[in-house]
Amino acid sequence: MATAIKRLLVGKALRTEQAIHERLTKKTALAVFSSDALSSTAYATEEILLVLAAAAAFTSGASFHYVVPVSVGIAVLLAIVATSYRQTIHAYPSGGGAYIVAKENLGTSPGLIAAAALLVDYVLTVSVSIAAGVAAITSAVQGTRYAWLDNHKVILCLIFIAFIAIANLRGVRESGALFAAPTYAFVVSFLFMIAFGLFHYFTYGGAAAVPGPEALKVAEGYKLQPLTLFLLLGAFSNGCAALTGIEAISNGVQAFKKPEATNAATTLIWMALLLTTMFLGTSVMAYLYGVHPRASETVISQFARIMFTGAFGWFYYVVQAATAAILVLAANTAFADFPRLSSLLARDRFLPRQLANRGDRLVFSNGIVILAIFSGILVSVFGGDTSRLIPLYAVGVFLSFTLSQSGMVVHWLRERAEKANWKKSLVINALGALATFVVLCVFIATKFIHGAWIVVLVIPLLVVLFRAIQRHYVMVAIQLSTEGLEPLRPVKTTVIVPISGIHRGVVSALQYAKSIASDKVQAVYVDFEEEATANLRDKWERWGAGVQLVVLRSPYRELTRPLLRHINRLGKENPNEIITVVLPEFIPARWWQHALHNQSSLLLKGSLLFKKGVIVTSVPYHLDH
Amino acid sequence: MATAIKRLLVGKALRTEQAIHERLTKKTALAVFSSDALSSTAYATEEILLVLAAAAAFTSGASFHYVVPVSVGIAVLLAIVATSYRQTIHAYPSGGGAYIVAKENLGTSPGLIAAAALLVDYVLTVSVSIAAGVAAITSAVQGTRYAWLDNHKVILCLIFIAFIAIANLRGVRESGALFAAPTYAFVVSFLFMIAFGLFHYFTYGGAAAVPGPEALKVAEGYKLQPLTLFLLLGAFSNGCAALTGIEAISNGVQAFKKPEATNAATTLIWMALLLTTMFLGTSVMAYLYGVHPRASETVISQFARIMFTGAFGWFYYVVQAATAAILVLAANTAFADFPRLSSLLARDRFLPRQLANRGDRLVFSNGIVILAIFSGILVSVFGGDTSRLIPLYAVGVFLSFTLSQSGMVVHWLRERAEKANWKKSLVINALGALATFVVLCVFIATKFIHGAWIVVLVIPLLVVLFRAIQRHYVMVAIQLSTEGLEPLRPVKTTVIVPISGIHRGVVSALQYAKSIASDKVQAVYVDFEEEATANLRDKWERWGAGVQLVVLRSPYRELTRPLLRHINRLGKENPNEIITVVLPEFIPARWWQHALHNQSSLLLKGSLLFKKGVIVTSVPYHLDH
Repeated sequence: MATAIKRLLVGKALRTEQAIHERLTKKTALAVFSSDALSSTAYATEEILLVLAAAAAFTSGASFHYVVPVSVGIAVLLAIVATSYRQTIHAYPSGGGAYIVAKENLGTSPGLIAAAALLVDYVLTVSVSIAAGVAAITSAVQGTRYAWLDNHKVILCLIFIAFIAIANLRGVRESGALFAAPTYAFVVSFLFMIAFGLFHYFTYGGAAAVPGPEALKVAEGYKLQPLTLFLLLGAFSNGCAALTGIEAISNGVQAFKKPEATNAATTLIWMALLLTTMFLGTSVMAYLYGVHPRASETVISQFARIMFTGAFGWFYYVVQAATAAILVLAANTAFADFPRLSSLLARDRFLPRQLANRGDRLVFSNGIVILAIFSGILVSVFGGDTSRLIPLYAVGVFLSFTLSQSGMVVHWLRERAEKANWKKSLVINALGALATFVVLCVFIATKFIHGAWIVVLVIPLLVVLFRAIQRHYVMVAIQLSTEGLEPLRPVKTTVIVPISGIHRGVVSALQYAKSIASDKVQAVYVDFEEEATANLRDKWERWGAGVQLVVLRSPYRELTRPLLRHINRLGKENPNEIITVVLPEFIPARWWQHALHNQSSLLLKGSLLFKKGVIVTSVPYHLDH
Repeated sequence: MATAIKRLLVGKALRTEQAIHERLTKKTALAVFSSDALSSTAYATEEILLVLAAAAAFTSGASFHYVVPVSVGIAVLLAIVATSYRQTIHAYPSGGGAYIVAKENLGTSPGLIAAAALLVDYVLTVSVSIAAGVAAITSAVQGTRYAWLDNHKVILCLIFIAFIAIANLRGVRESGALFAAPTYAFVVSFLFMIAFGLFHYFTYGGAAAVPGPEALKVAEGYKLQPLTLFLLLGAFSNGCAALTGIEAISNGVQAFKKPEATNAATTLIWMALLLTTMFLGTSVMAYLYGVHPRASETVISQFARIMFTGAFGWFYYVVQAATAAILVLAANTAFADFPRLSSLLARDRFLPRQLANRGDRLVFSNGIVILAIFSGILVSVFGGDTSRLIPLYAVGVFLSFTLSQSGMVVHWLRERAEKANWKKSLVINALGALATFVVLCVFIATKFIHGAWIVVLVIPLLVVLFRAIQRHYVMVAIQLSTEGLEPLRPVKTTVIVPISGIHRGVVSALQYAKSIASDKVQAVYVDFEEEATANLRDKWERWGAGVQLVVLRSPYRELTRPLLRHINRLGKENPNEIITVVLPEFIPARWWQHALHNQSSLLLKGSLLFKKGVIVTSVPYHLDH
């Protein structure tokens, strides 16, 4: 039955040869790889405003004006990082994820740190994107009869995560067809909204944002305070969420049509330009129209509502739908990346080997399930609120940026003999590494108490775990190696059959025991009650098949302990023999009937499992009804 | 480790001979057996008032005066039932529980119905008593800095249930020492409170009950309505909770000193008199002092507060403490009765046989755990509120009363030859049966929609379950019987060893396989990758020990399916042979390391478990670290 449910959810098994490798054009690749990066424009501006809101009361709202310079600062950082990653694309045309670049150039430990940072980042990508996608939906239904959805954000998030996980277990490939429509719909509707807004503002003047009945929302953990540099840095850190996902193209160079590296580099520039335009555009609009963060409606939704009224009202829903769709796609990206990175780590023995196996739909099913569980836990714990998740988000991202760019610096030093303009490349990557490192420090300083401490704690723990797992696998390999093992010696075995009386199951177990060791067989009975024992002895003549019957006393009405003691005794008497315990077990016809029988043989098996020199064999006797 | 925790919680194992049978004097027996019955005075009056409260607004509070006649009606019923049970004590000196009396005299089905009713009743005894005990505590802390306890009633209930369950798993005997103090403290303090209240009322006039700031509490599910006969019957039904537990002495006649029956009968009369006095006293006091039910404080607590002020203030806490203590004892009674009845049913094969086994502390551990779980669920679902549980309570009690008394009627008809005054006895029991049957009908009519429907549904379902379980056991016994079985024939076995490569674990499994069937052994390897297969073939020469190597193809990267197909094929080729699957399994040194290895052998075992003619043997290879 479990199999039937599995087939229904994930579809038929696929043959190994059915794996398909699609090559993407630049246009499709832009759609496939940029959903994560572009989708962050749906919340980045808002996250900046949420921090600035803490100083709104002290500055009569003027603190919100800083959204523009803060965004410009982030855009500059974006330019540096994108330029830096262009280098990676050319240096690692086979795919240069932070794990690989850091491991190859800086060593295993930095590689593992980068890997841990990325795994954490992928979990957060899912949580943040889904929470933001759900916020787009709950914002859209404000004031309608579906407004109650706002109270069930966590459930909505979990439904989306389950949906994406199942789609990925079925094996959604990163196919152009799936990605192109929502991504371009989002880009076009967003750009249109910004253009329309600017046009409107400069033609008719800004439509004043209608202050809602709701109070201003302030980023959780921030007290109302004057505007300080530290607060501005906090706003900057929050806005850096806009940079997440920018590394996606450098991981996937192999998916491009030839020449891979050139096409990938061009696509990266396009993505960076689009991202800058959309992000800066949104921030400028927030400034011009004076939109402020509210609890029940996103900034984007407020915008779109101001902008598109009357005959254009329907376009509001287009924006919200496209926003929700691209955010779901962004989460979907992590569902491809997390299992892929886990499988790389598992192949290097840093994670359980189950993560390296492709399931019967050719996807890394275990990684998908684990990602779904962790991101589900995160959205549940943080109440499906994007802004509460943001302080956890960028630590992993910027740590992996820093390690990856530092790795590139070392790479250029090594390559200096072969490459003419290695100095220029080195400077670019060094600048990238420095910039991202500084931002990482700012991020940790401003967000530590707001949740970043969790990530700062988890990343080193993960590295310790990776190391412990690898150590275990190495030890197992050494212990199991046939190196130095002498050729086979024949072994002897004594067979004992624990019995609870005489019935068909016992008879067939005795039969089997004699077949595997004709002379050295003994039946063992634990005596609870004298009468039953006498009864058994009477029957033994006829059914015992000449097997020796041993009766053990049990003053505490225990079954397992006297048997174990007997087995130990036998083991001491014949230290060179293996003891085979043949257990008669009858198998009920229906599963619920198991509950009606003593699980004593299960208990016995459990306690014998860890005993050396003992082998347990169940001889099932199948009941028909 | 699990064993260590168990030992800490429940103590050392006890030898079978250590079972003690204490004989009780009348005084101690009264304490031991009456805690359930007497404790119901802590809530019975209040439950009547809660229903009368529904008509308070329509009658300017006059509806509350009916608490006295309703209570008198219940007292009359109590007298009938107690007299009826005296007969049972004399007729069944070895202990006449409703299950036994109904089964012997009316047949198996009525016996099972009585048993089902009693099991349900025991679960409710625990839930109601613990909820009432917790209410005594939360009432006492009203207005103190522990008033917040009132918001955590369910947690408190669960803690008490866990505490009693653990005490019973350790093996609290129904010892006089434990029971006497709280029971007599309760009786004395209650009688004193009533006497003091009457004295005060007739000397100084009633101290007016201070109406609290809180609104009147009305029994859940009752709308405000005029006073009708149906409402009075509802109040009567609620008050019938006072009768629960009255049958306890008739179940435990054997525990009395000789002459058992006479002593038990005398004790029953004492119990009935005490119960009547305390219950009627409480109801009269409620009338005289005009105490009304409130949500955050019990009626008894309100009383005790009015009565004991100033220098007598401390006595209020004595009353509350004694009330809470006897209610916990009442729950404890069910923890003795439920497992005992379950074990009787299990011995008659109507319940899983695990319930018939005494654990290592000589108690029926499984029954205790099940009772704790079910009563825990009930208090959780009903929010730890006594008055919401009451509508479920008395159905089971009165059903078992009716069946037990009807059984006695049949008993006297059968005994009429031997017993002189059988007619008088028959009339008494017939009256008892009739009275309890009428009350049962009234109860179902008035309480059905308030929750009694659950019990009306559960009891027949339980009976169906009992029957199904017995049918299964009978079928198993028939199928396993050696009746008609031919004596042993020798069997032959083919051994296959599924391997994942060559390592020490595999080598030792091959060794073992050869020892149990020297010629008919084959190793089976599932081919995922051509390179690995070629590698294996190379090594086979040296390590294969002359065993045949079979390689299976697996296009879907599955392990289990190709193996199963191979086993099926072998089975068809040699239909008379048993196939033994010898699985090489390495056992990690630490439990968490299991997670790092493929559970494929577990999956394989699972799918082979239900295959006829196949026996699975794991050959463990123990790793050291």
